[in-house]
Amino acid sequence: MPTPAPEGRAAFAVSERGALLRHAGGPIDLAALDTTGTPGFDGDKAAGERALAELAEPLADLQERLFAEGRSGGRRNVLLVLQGMDTSGKGGTLRSTVGLLDPQGVRITSFKAPTREELAHDFLWRITRALPEVGMVGVFDRSHYEDVLIARVRALAPPEEIERRYEAINAWEAELAAEGTVIIKCFLHISREEQKERLLARLDDPTKHWKFNPGDIDERQLWPAYQEAYEIAIERTSTAVAPWHVVPADRKWYRNLAIATLLDDALRHLDPQWPAADFDVEEQRRRLTDEPSS
Amino acid sequence: MPTPAPEGRAAFAVSERGALLRHAGGPIDLAALDTTGTPGFDGDKAAGERALAELAEPLADLQERLFAEGRSGGRRNVLLVLQGMDTSGKGGTLRSTVGLLDPQGVRITSFKAPTREELAHDFLWRITRALPEVGMVGVFDRSHYEDVLIARVRALAPPEEIERRYEAINAWEAELAAEGTVIIKCFLHISREEQKERLLARLDDPTKHWKFNPGDIDERQLWPAYQEAYEIAIERTSTAVAPWHVVPADRKWYRNLAIATLLDDALRHLDPQWPAADFDVEEQRRRLTDEPSS
Repeated sequence: MPTPAPEGRAAFAVSERGALLRHAGGPIDLAALDTTGTPGFDGDKAAGERALAELAEPLADLQERLFAEGRSGGRRNVLLVLQGMDTSGKGGTLRSTVGLLDPQGVRITSFKAPTREELAHDFLWRITRALPEVGMVGVFDRSHYEDVLIARVRALAPPEEIERRYEAINAWEAELAAEGTVIIKCFLHISREEQKERLLARLDDPTKHWKFNPGDIDERQLWPAYQEAYEIAIERTSTAVAPWHVVPADRKWYRNLAIATLLDDALRHLDPQWPAADFDVEEQRRRLTDEPSS
Repeated sequence: MPTPAPEGRAAFAVSERGALLRHAGGPIDLAALDTTGTPGFDGDKAAGERALAELAEPLADLQERLFAEGRSGGRRNVLLVLQGMDTSGKGGTLRSTVGLLDPQGVRITSFKAPTREELAHDFLWRITRALPEVGMVGVFDRSHYEDVLIARVRALAPPEEIERRYEAINAWEAELAAEGTVIIKCFLHISREEQKERLLARLDDPTKHWKFNPGDIDERQLWPAYQEAYEIAIERTSTAVAPWHVVPADRKWYRNLAIATLLDDALRHLDPQWPAADFDVEEQRRRLTDEPSS
């Protein structure tokens, strides 16, 4: 098996588009980043949808190779972390981009408010339990980052505990990467105005009422505090082995294409190979062809 | 919430195709059932693939409604059980049919040989832990039926324990159905000759060697014993609330279409409705439109 990238080195070689989305490190000003942009892609919506469709086959091929490797002694996998404000499109990304993959090789976990049992453990306990098996593409719809986002904004933990968590996350992710997991962290970046439009659209459509919660507006009223919490999290937890990507997400088609590109980057970096047979192919063929006809 | 079908009543109204696939009860002779047939469909492969593609949208709509119901207090879900001999197409069904669904609402569990911990419990322990949450479509790639199939053929448990299991399965499935789960049990029926062709094709293609295990041929040599074990299982565990379906599976396109039809039947039977808002829509709209512009 190829060995994972050594700790401290870049987690994966990126496409031009992936490179543009990747946070280079240091302080970040989300307000200065255009939520309607299409970094690394100069086509329109129709072209973007075609580009996504064209990624389906190479993604499926790479994913199957990774799955095969995992069934044959390989230790590697992929973890895609999706974060963003309400309506930023985590669910849409699961349907449109993660939905391109073979569901056999995908493990999605949607994190809700922690249960009493989960709260009785360290915040990384439930996250660790949800990690994908070898050969799989794991997807976190929300994640351990909620423990430094809503937990910070809503003061759900003492300030010193929040402080501790950034380093705990970095240490945990570094260990994960060293064990063979390629970690793709994405912040789906929408504007406050776009969120308003999307929430109103949910209210206008009775088939979308189930997605709406009055609490979404309470959280929205804390928009600046959330943006600041994201800026701090991105600055403090963008590491060489687990960098953040800021994905402009006002355009759904671009968001889908961007996440697919990052998955493709990660899988191409892993470059999984079809496992060699650990049996004698000719001998097995003879066992089949020599059997008495039934 | 609509209540689930009462125990003892048919689990779900079926389409003509679904009805033809459903085991009516009583003894079954698998050798007499054509593995190349296309019950309830008289088109060719291209027509079958079109028919499958046409099911994608209604399936996605029904699945989203079920998911929404589950997020809004509903207790219902679907469990698809896939069984069949090696190469019968359980993996292909996951990719081509289950892959039509939104992965957010799907939970796939592939059961391998039980671990030491699992063996220390009743055979239904690990199965119960893998049950889908409310609103989800759960899929079992192999299942508790292995405990009366390979366990019977390979004498992995004493005969009286195997005997006990049929009734234990029926009682467990009846309880599950009464709690709101629609259970779809499918035997993917291939011929012995077709399995030989598929195993040889795996040997011929280095990208498929990872799927091949010499033990597959050992199991194949017990073909008649496995067919008998399936016949006994189907006869003894086809109940009104959890009937078996025998799906001719030599033609992959028909197998995919048949399973999609059964999923569609189950979801249409549940007929999930968009949950009503449990908040005042106008009040929430005002909260959004009245907010100071940012």
